[in-house]
Amino acid sequence: MPDTLASLGEFGLIARLEALLAREGVAAPGVVLGLGDDTAILRPQPGQEMLITCDCLVAGRHYLPGVIGPRELGRRAMAVNLSDIAAMGGQPLHALVSLGLTAQSSLEEVEEIYRGFLAELNPHGAAVVGGNITKTEGPAFIDVTLVGQAPAGRALRRSGGKVGDAILVTGWPGQAAAGLRQLRQAPGQAHPELRRAYLTPTPRLAQGRAVAQSGLASAMLDISDGLLGDLNHICEQSHTGALLAAARLPVSPALRQAAQAWGQDPLDLVLGDSDDYELIITCPPQNVAGLMAALAAVGQVPASQVGRLTPPGQGLELALPGGERRPLRPRGWDHFGD
Amino acid sequence: MPDTLASLGEFGLIARLEALLAREGVAAPGVVLGLGDDTAILRPQPGQEMLITCDCLVAGRHYLPGVIGPRELGRRAMAVNLSDIAAMGGQPLHALVSLGLTAQSSLEEVEEIYRGFLAELNPHGAAVVGGNITKTEGPAFIDVTLVGQAPAGRALRRSGGKVGDAILVTGWPGQAAAGLRQLRQAPGQAHPELRRAYLTPTPRLAQGRAVAQSGLASAMLDISDGLLGDLNHICEQSHTGALLAAARLPVSPALRQAAQAWGQDPLDLVLGDSDDYELIITCPPQNVAGLMAALAAVGQVPASQVGRLTPPGQGLELALPGGERRPLRPRGWDHFGD
Repeated sequence: MPDTLASLGEFGLIARLEALLAREGVAAPGVVLGLGDDTAILRPQPGQEMLITCDCLVAGRHYLPGVIGPRELGRRAMAVNLSDIAAMGGQPLHALVSLGLTAQSSLEEVEEIYRGFLAELNPHGAAVVGGNITKTEGPAFIDVTLVGQAPAGRALRRSGGKVGDAILVTGWPGQAAAGLRQLRQAPGQAHPELRRAYLTPTPRLAQGRAVAQSGLASAMLDISDGLLGDLNHICEQSHTGALLAAARLPVSPALRQAAQAWGQDPLDLVLGDSDDYELIITCPPQNVAGLMAALAAVGQVPASQVGRLTPPGQGLELALPGGERRPLRPRGWDHFGD
Repeated sequence: MPDTLASLGEFGLIARLEALLAREGVAAPGVVLGLGDDTAILRPQPGQEMLITCDCLVAGRHYLPGVIGPRELGRRAMAVNLSDIAAMGGQPLHALVSLGLTAQSSLEEVEEIYRGFLAELNPHGAAVVGGNITKTEGPAFIDVTLVGQAPAGRALRRSGGKVGDAILVTGWPGQAAAGLRQLRQAPGQAHPELRRAYLTPTPRLAQGRAVAQSGLASAMLDISDGLLGDLNHICEQSHTGALLAAARLPVSPALRQAAQAWGQDPLDLVLGDSDDYELIITCPPQNVAGLMAALAAVGQVPASQVGRLTPPGQGLELALPGGERRPLRPRGWDHFGD
């Protein structure tokens, strides 16, 4: 019979998880004191600014317990936070994990969630340094706070875009939403690439750091509200509009196939609500080639130049191949709208 | 009709809360970039180490929605985290708040929760710099991550106690549990002092910093698992036992009165499970007077010398007035035990 949380008790569970982290996790830089006291103690590196973010997954709302396994869930919960550090061009260092567990949770499941955290953190030399575990009668939740660093003054914001800047995007936006839809329809038949895009997105940490280090970009953020939703965030904070070229939007073969099966325009899937954790980057036009080279130097993730920032009065528009312009209305995923 | 979260939408709610924080919150040191981007950007102060902790309150489990008002709830959620910074001897700086809200939540209620955060943060010059809001079908939750700082090498740990060290405690442990019990029995008739001890505990920040700055203490932690439960944490990590003197345990008049009404030994209430957020401090015997003076210099919170650390084989014991010693069994609040 697997250990239950009630038989282990809170302190027993914490001891097991601390042992797992010590055994299977890596040592992160700057940790003076990790788990086991009132707070962790961290030593900031000189010349670095600290980045901090938190993002929470709630069962049934941000993930489907029947569809995602516990290790994938741990990976996803950590990945969505790593993506925020990536979007600033930072290096992840330290995670705190707040778990809300139900009476149904088993030790085995919680340990697998933690292994998922480590699968995402270890490759970047980052570690879990604190946390909190509580029981809840309602849906389980995983709230992660992630600390990272970036050289002082080099972190990239949403607000730096200028009219005329080129808009770049990494990877294949829209795949996550398509994966989720397929998983909901028939979990066993989801396209592996779309499934992976949704369940275990890869945060673009190497790409984000390369962009920040190049000094060539004006703004950056990650796509968690869909390409259009997040581009709109850049536009709002940078006080611009944006014109996207339909012919330049990246459509993966898997997404094209899914769109065909659903009788939909694939571009609606590329632009629409989808938590893809790709990066949107803006830069002066003369920096595009340099930025593309910087991105290519750190891996195989494709980047596409998809449009440019326009004067604020123009809003968001799509340029169709025939030259016609269609206004676009961003929606973004609204947690209270449904 | 009050604004509902569904009518405002997630981004509308966030905009309202950001406006509230800008209007009613103070500016914390070292904030390069606050709310509104993928991460906050913070500039660590030279010579300081960073302290980081997180603690989560779940409705029905860590608070009683019918008994605690939203502003008190915000205060409590922040205070329990501030207490962890206090227990290291640190200065609180930056908070991230992850809220899980139900469909029943109103804007007014959420704003009151945020005012509660500010009521606790503003006096210490600390600010909310990030967060996350999500909807949940289950009980609401508030997960706070708090960042603080302490001069490098000066933060006090649980593990520094030595055999022979004196044990000090601030305030009146046990009052919070008594307050909770009275609130459950008859909310309107709870003793104001006990009620306050439970609903809006005062984190001992000034006391914690004074202790750390004095350099006179060997270990410190806050009481959230009861005096005995947390003293046991010091003993485990410091490899000691502990002997408490029954005659020296602080019993407040309000607690004595409550114990009498329940026909209980007040010492059981002082020692038992109770989240009081007072501080347990250990120090070499010759430092007691200096430490008491350092504590007295920062305010009116009483401190009591209640016993000493003993060799590890002796466990936890209570010395009765007649000279007899009674073994004590720490329990601490186990989140999965009930």
